[in-house]
Amino acid sequence: MDKLSEVITNSSLTTFGGGQSGTWKVISIITIVGQPLELVQRIEIIKTKYLLDKTNYKWFLRGVTSNLRYTTKEENATLDKTPSVLDRPDYKYAALIPIKKSEEWWLLTQDERRKIFEDTSRHISYSSKFLSTIARKLYHSKDIGENFDFLTWFEFAPEHSHQFDELVNYLRNTEEWKYVTREIDIRLVRDDKDK
Amino acid sequence: MDKLSEVITNSSLTTFGGGQSGTWKVISIITIVGQPLELVQRIEIIKTKYLLDKTNYKWFLRGVTSNLRYTTKEENATLDKTPSVLDRPDYKYAALIPIKKSEEWWLLTQDERRKIFEDTSRHISYSSKFLSTIARKLYHSKDIGENFDFLTWFEFAPEHSHQFDELVNYLRNTEEWKYVTREIDIRLVRDDKDK
Repeated sequence: MDKLSEVITNSSLTTFGGGQSGTWKVISIITIVGQPLELVQRIEIIKTKYLLDKTNYKWFLRGVTSNLRYTTKEENATLDKTPSVLDRPDYKYAALIPIKKSEEWWLLTQDERRKIFEDTSRHISYSSKFLSTIARKLYHSKDIGENFDFLTWFEFAPEHSHQFDELVNYLRNTEEWKYVTREIDIRLVRDDKDK
Repeated sequence: MDKLSEVITNSSLTTFGGGQSGTWKVISIITIVGQPLELVQRIEIIKTKYLLDKTNYKWFLRGVTSNLRYTTKEENATLDKTPSVLDRPDYKYAALIPIKKSEEWWLLTQDERRKIFEDTSRHISYSSKFLSTIARKLYHSKDIGENFDFLTWFEFAPEHSHQFDELVNYLRNTEEWKYVTREIDIRLVRDDKDK
């Protein structure tokens, strides 16, 4: 019996494996809203489609990079001035924030979602303040049938942790976040030696 | 070795299997632009994730239904007045049109794509003329790593074939279509008896 579901050949597929191995050591896993995620010691970022041993992991979170969904040309020009650079040696801290939004959100039309996302919640314009200190990468998970809709990965220097807290606290109080039904805040520290 | 790519649990996953079985008998497969698709006699629409026998098929095209990407609230209200009803016994004809757009298209921002899609090409407003005679369903394939970005499935009565031709001919001459790098036009007729 062949599994038709083996369709992900998207080269941008990234898997976050939660378990006991990986470069990123877990500092905390806090459930902001919805069902918790099982606690793990480390997170491994897996770019390949094959794993030699799956038993090392308690869970996997998967996502694909995709085209821009809300950003305008003008906003993108601003964002492009300060590109996100991951893997900077001084950015020793990271955060992985998986998010799921309600059915109600996804039934909104494009202009309604954009209005809430930016006009009301200022998601892009507020976040722009942190471009120079917080690197980020967004992965889409909803259309590949994952439990979360998005995974956002952030990297920053330890001294900018308070800025990161400021950013997530701001977002959690926006109109947009009223549609968030599940959110986990995973904080990590780079620890290459015990990889 | 576990395949991490077995991730599609999305219940909206639909597979079009091209081969020698299925309700829909192929009338023609015409390559509009790009690499052709192997000719087949029939197409089977598979909603489950498992297949008992894969050898019946020459190819599979897969897609997921998703949220609206360009439609505004106002446009959606118009569209909702004439909902697409598939599987109508009098709609004996169908068309499956897989499309791929260029990298250039996907690098455009949301407002740039919307401008080309509707302001310039009138994709929604022109297509609206055919709502009462042509039923349709859009599947997204890009983010699940397929060779095409979209699959659109249409059903209509044989007497409205010329309207369908009018619709696709219009779209193929739009600004939006300049970004289409691969398109196959598959016409079908319902043939339940030889299912």
